[in-house]
Amino acid sequence: MVIILKQEHEERQLDNLLKWLAGLNLRTTLIKGERSTILGLIGDTSLVDIDMVKAIDIVESVRRIQEPYKEANRKFHPDDTIIDVSGRRIGGRNFTVIAGPCSVESCEQICEIAAKVKKSGAVMLRGGAFKPRTSPYAFQGLRAEGLEFLLEAKKKTGMPIVSEIMNVNHISMFEQVDIIQVGARNMQNFELLKELGGLDKPVLLKRGLANTIEELLMSAEYIMAGGNKNIILCERGIRTFETYTRNTLDLSAIPLLKELSHLPVVVDPSHATGVSRLVKPMSLAAAAAGADGLIIEVHNDPSRALCDGAQSLTPDVFEDVVDRICELLPLLGKNPVRNEKTYD
Amino acid sequence: MVIILKQEHEERQLDNLLKWLAGLNLRTTLIKGERSTILGLIGDTSLVDIDMVKAIDIVESVRRIQEPYKEANRKFHPDDTIIDVSGRRIGGRNFTVIAGPCSVESCEQICEIAAKVKKSGAVMLRGGAFKPRTSPYAFQGLRAEGLEFLLEAKKKTGMPIVSEIMNVNHISMFEQVDIIQVGARNMQNFELLKELGGLDKPVLLKRGLANTIEELLMSAEYIMAGGNKNIILCERGIRTFETYTRNTLDLSAIPLLKELSHLPVVVDPSHATGVSRLVKPMSLAAAAAGADGLIIEVHNDPSRALCDGAQSLTPDVFEDVVDRICELLPLLGKNPVRNEKTYD
Amino acid sequence: MVIILKQEHEERQLDNLLKWLAGLNLRTTLIKGERSTILGLIGDTSLVDIDMVKAIDIVESVRRIQEPYKEANRKFHPDDTIIDVSGRRIGGRNFTVIAGPCSVESCEQICEIAAKVKKSGAVMLRGGAFKPRTSPYAFQGLRAEGLEFLLEAKKKTGMPIVSEIMNVNHISMFEQVDIIQVGARNMQNFELLKELGGLDKPVLLKRGLANTIEELLMSAEYIMAGGNKNIILCERGIRTFETYTRNTLDLSAIPLLKELSHLPVVVDPSHATGVSRLVKPMSLAAAAAGADGLIIEVHNDPSRALCDGAQSLTPDVFEDVVDRICELLPLLGKNPVRNEKTYD
Amino acid sequence: MVIILKQEHEERQLDNLLKWLAGLNLRTTLIKGERSTILGLIGDTSLVDIDMVKAIDIVESVRRIQEPYKEANRKFHPDDTIIDVSGRRIGGRNFTVIAGPCSVESCEQICEIAAKVKKSGAVMLRGGAFKPRTSPYAFQGLRAEGLEFLLEAKKKTGMPIVSEIMNVNHISMFEQVDIIQVGARNMQNFELLKELGGLDKPVLLKRGLANTIEELLMSAEYIMAGGNKNIILCERGIRTFETYTRNTLDLSAIPLLKELSHLPVVVDPSHATGVSRLVKPMSLAAAAAGADGLIIEVHNDPSRALCDGAQSLTPDVFEDVVDRICELLPLLGKNPVRNEKTYD
Repeated sequence: MVIILKQEHEERQLDNLLKWLAGLNLRTTLIKGERSTILGLIGDTSLVDIDMVKAIDIVESVRRIQEPYKEANRKFHPDDTIIDVSGRRIGGRNFTVIAGPCSVESCEQICEIAAKVKKSGAVMLRGGAFKPRTSPYAFQGLRAEGLEFLLEAKKKTGMPIVSEIMNVNHISMFEQVDIIQVGARNMQNFELLKELGGLDKPVLLKRGLANTIEELLMSAEYIMAGGNKNIILCERGIRTFETYTRNTLDLSAIPLLKELSHLPVVVDPSHATGVSRLVKPMSLAAAAAGADGLIIEVHNDPSRALCDGAQSLTPDVFEDVVDRICELLPLLGKNPVRNEKTYD
Repeated sequence: MVIILKQEHEERQLDNLLKWLAGLNLRTTLIKGERSTILGLIGDTSLVDIDMVKAIDIVESVRRIQEPYKEANRKFHPDDTIIDVSGRRIGGRNFTVIAGPCSVESCEQICEIAAKVKKSGAVMLRGGAFKPRTSPYAFQGLRAEGLEFLLEAKKKTGMPIVSEIMNVNHISMFEQVDIIQVGARNMQNFELLKELGGLDKPVLLKRGLANTIEELLMSAEYIMAGGNKNIILCERGIRTFETYTRNTLDLSAIPLLKELSHLPVVVDPSHATGVSRLVKPMSLAAAAAGADGLIIEVHNDPSRALCDGAQSLTPDVFEDVVDRICELLPLLGKNPVRNEKTYD
Repeated sequence: MVIILKQEHEERQLDNLLKWLAGLNLRTTLIKGERSTILGLIGDTSLVDIDMVKAIDIVESVRRIQEPYKEANRKFHPDDTIIDVSGRRIGGRNFTVIAGPCSVESCEQICEIAAKVKKSGAVMLRGGAFKPRTSPYAFQGLRAEGLEFLLEAKKKTGMPIVSEIMNVNHISMFEQVDIIQVGARNMQNFELLKELGGLDKPVLLKRGLANTIEELLMSAEYIMAGGNKNIILCERGIRTFETYTRNTLDLSAIPLLKELSHLPVVVDPSHATGVSRLVKPMSLAAAAAGADGLIIEVHNDPSRALCDGAQSLTPDVFEDVVDRICELLPLLGKNPVRNEKTYD
Repeated sequence: MVIILKQEHEERQLDNLLKWLAGLNLRTTLIKGERSTILGLIGDTSLVDIDMVKAIDIVESVRRIQEPYKEANRKFHPDDTIIDVSGRRIGGRNFTVIAGPCSVESCEQICEIAAKVKKSGAVMLRGGAFKPRTSPYAFQGLRAEGLEFLLEAKKKTGMPIVSEIMNVNHISMFEQVDIIQVGARNMQNFELLKELGGLDKPVLLKRGLANTIEELLMSAEYIMAGGNKNIILCERGIRTFETYTRNTLDLSAIPLLKELSHLPVVVDPSHATGVSRLVKPMSLAAAAAGADGLIIEVHNDPSRALCDGAQSLTPDVFEDVVDRICELLPLLGKNPVRNEKTYD
């Protein structure tokens, strides 16, 4: 950490600051120039509250040099985290495809899609039971009933299921859900993150629309600090001025996250672009950029989907996407995760 | 609502679409051109799920013409909403100053600041008991104890209190809090908004970092749709590429929100800029742009504030800000709300 | 300047770096920690090419502490720059209103508006002869003829004129134009800036849509480094995700620019918002935030303006805006600049 | 084009508007609802000045349905444009690699790099003679001398050369340059674009930092409207709030641009990210997303590059990037362009 001091400081104030920093077990070096004075801090600064330092009256600005996250930091955990979800792995040399509809609409619908995406190469099933919608008048999901239908589809196909949580009070309802998804809008719902930190269940954490890579890692840190280390990071587009796409998919986040962290990184090309015909090129690009997997919206009848249908693929197109990716993977040093166990 | 159709559509598909729209009680007019076909919809389209329309396979794109919010819409509620909080009013010709520290740190601290900001012209007290912090290692607020201290300061000064909620399960703890604040990170925590819709208590709803004006109004609509009409909108800066300020304060949101909606609009210049010396010019500018009030961070010892001190004013500077605003208000058609009842 | 070194560096490489920095007359202090090594530089770092330092293989990152601009920097020029334009002043305690149509359309039009805005309180006339338009098929301005008409309006009203330049080859055509405007899209047209640096004529430099405050000051520095110190900075909105307004007016840039620099700062509320009914509240807000003036679009027949009419005021509304601002100015420590000399 | 009218309009005003539109050879259909009136326009609306329509007083808003570009529009030119540059092709099924240093520094340097990148698979040489730099004190390029050195490298290696133009007056100096590059900061330097429209020479047009995909196509349209149809579009990152990377590379722009336009699209991963170790994953991702080529910075001694060295690859790493891409291309339906003619 580097602290830049205001030029007009009193010696007494500086002494107080130096004592306070020494009390935090940090070594300090003072560099005095004509127009600026710099204080370099050496030691474990990840626990220092940077806002507190900024608030000190003789401090002009503070620059962090070390990353503020530890559990999620590759420097302290050099090996890739590989998460095992009922035999399907995410991370390392594995490439994992998760697919399913935006919303669970009926038991028949989710079971039918589950069977189709499994056949095409998906190894986990996604489906929204609780739906975050901008409008209170839009379809909000089947909620508890939706989770039941998902579990039915899990039973029929053997595929682990991924579904989004929106409320700390719903955690008990997600007991049999294999991966709990935290949506972009809840990435900084810190109370929810803390609760998830106490579980022993993988969490798929989506990057918020206006959140930096560092903030995504800090949100992962919230869960990990609670003891739950099974975090899957998900890039799903950030908000920019461009209007052709719903969001701007930031694929450079993939190699960056994998450099900064040991956690697996998957990409959601469906929500990121909001345009179904961009899902294929963006899926291939995500794989080429080093992603550990994809989470793709597939609907058996996109023209009738209750929400977000514009970004859904048909099962046929989805199969083509998976086939094309599987062709690329050997050249990218990745192995596609397969459905080893067959159920129906 | 205007629907632009794909050129290569079958008549049968178009017929299905027209029947479906007729079932929604919408009148349709078809305009056929050489290179585009447009469908104009007349009627109450606010209940139409735009994503569902987009998903129909012969639809190229959809453009809303009516606003998707009703309760928050000035078209249906032309008069300003004026909210009465224990005798202090927000909205209409009133200008209301809310002030206090970022975090409640101790009973003495909050009571001392409360007395000071009241003396300087604040009519409500803000103070964070639950703090949303990017890092799990940063100070998270005194939580329940912080609310107690706030209530003590309320008892001593008679000022209504404003505090942020972060968890649906905490609602019962906020029973004696006069205004519940929803922070920027929770603006689209729809489950929380729904719960707040069932209360009979004013809600101060902050705009999210990456949220549009329409999304802010839709979040207000979530609460209002539940029955709670006492919403105060708060502009507090959006995230842009500029790095000198923490966020970019969007003051044009004030006249826009007041045109589109009847709800009062206050501005938080402290969090928006993150720089205490910008609070004064931005407070004056907010008043000049038509804001109904301000929510300002004040700390008795900014150099020791446990969080966000960099953006806090001293009580002296705060008094100067209020004095300057009170000079401007008559020229802006606003009256400052005063502390009529004195307690201590 | 603070240089953070990679942990795995050789002593030989570090020695080379230290020698190179010493050759630049910079004193260095090395701070070695377990996980990071920091190099603090003291001396005049404004001439150091930061990209060159970043490129050195043992450097992890570089952080500037001093501002990279000198001529535009208030630290070296503490007094406000006040620019005299044929007796009308910009900067200091003066508040200067510039007004006129987006485009010059005819001699009658510009002369008529000139007389009207002068009567309402404008002291300089703006009018576009060369128009930057997104589409090659849109009206591109009357060009040379437009400048002639502007000069005719100047002759008739005695008002200095402001017009935009788009091409280095047009400089000679601007000899009698009082202030040359550099538009947002040309803010980083460095070849144009260099040429303007050789003139002895005020330049109104607009902030680019995606440019930071520091980049705006660096573009001013380009002109000033050439010898031309008469720069007027202009905030006119930055591009964000919000779509209700054309751009997001960043009023916090005003106090920041005035703190960082001694140059006058004016605001263009018309282009910033693109909505004529926002011009009044944003003009008042800009004045309250400390702006040195405004540049406002006024059209005698907004419904027929050849370009950007949506953001133009009628002369009547403009007069009201100026009247309201003149009421506020005494409370803001500013004096309105008046048309002392009357011509017609 | 769809025009939404204000509710309170007079019949006379509407009649005037309808007559004016009829005069533009547009057919109109009026749709009247309770709370909105819509006017649908059928015909060639690409020549309609949308700002002019917006300015009409009874118009609330205008929405374009047809794209405002024609020459660049795939609807009117369904086949891919393939540009032949001295035997090297860009577009169609070709994948073209352009490489070279950020700046030309000396004749030896550019000739040495040229030979190296040619050996590694580049088929064109890039090198900056005129450099757009944020600071007037930073290295501005060798200018005319730099172009001479580039031509020398062209002579020695037979590779066509690409170099950036910054000034309309320099066009004659670029006579022997094979592809003229327009940088991001000049994407809307319309005067320059017009001049380039009169040439018979390929132009590589980079997307501006804050420019939409539509604006990029409109800038291409500027050049094409002048007669020069040989435009290569280049995605090089847009400015967002993320700070880990210099810009956010928008790879979804590739399939979108190729859908909307017939022009070839190349990607510059070096400037987009500003981080050399991201060049490889982003190059692979760009190829996978459907790019027609890459323009990559390579420096023989990145640690000593005069500018932008942080983003440059060594020739060895560059060779690895090209090798890896060439492995992927057959699976992506693309053929790498080779140096058929050998010179040295």
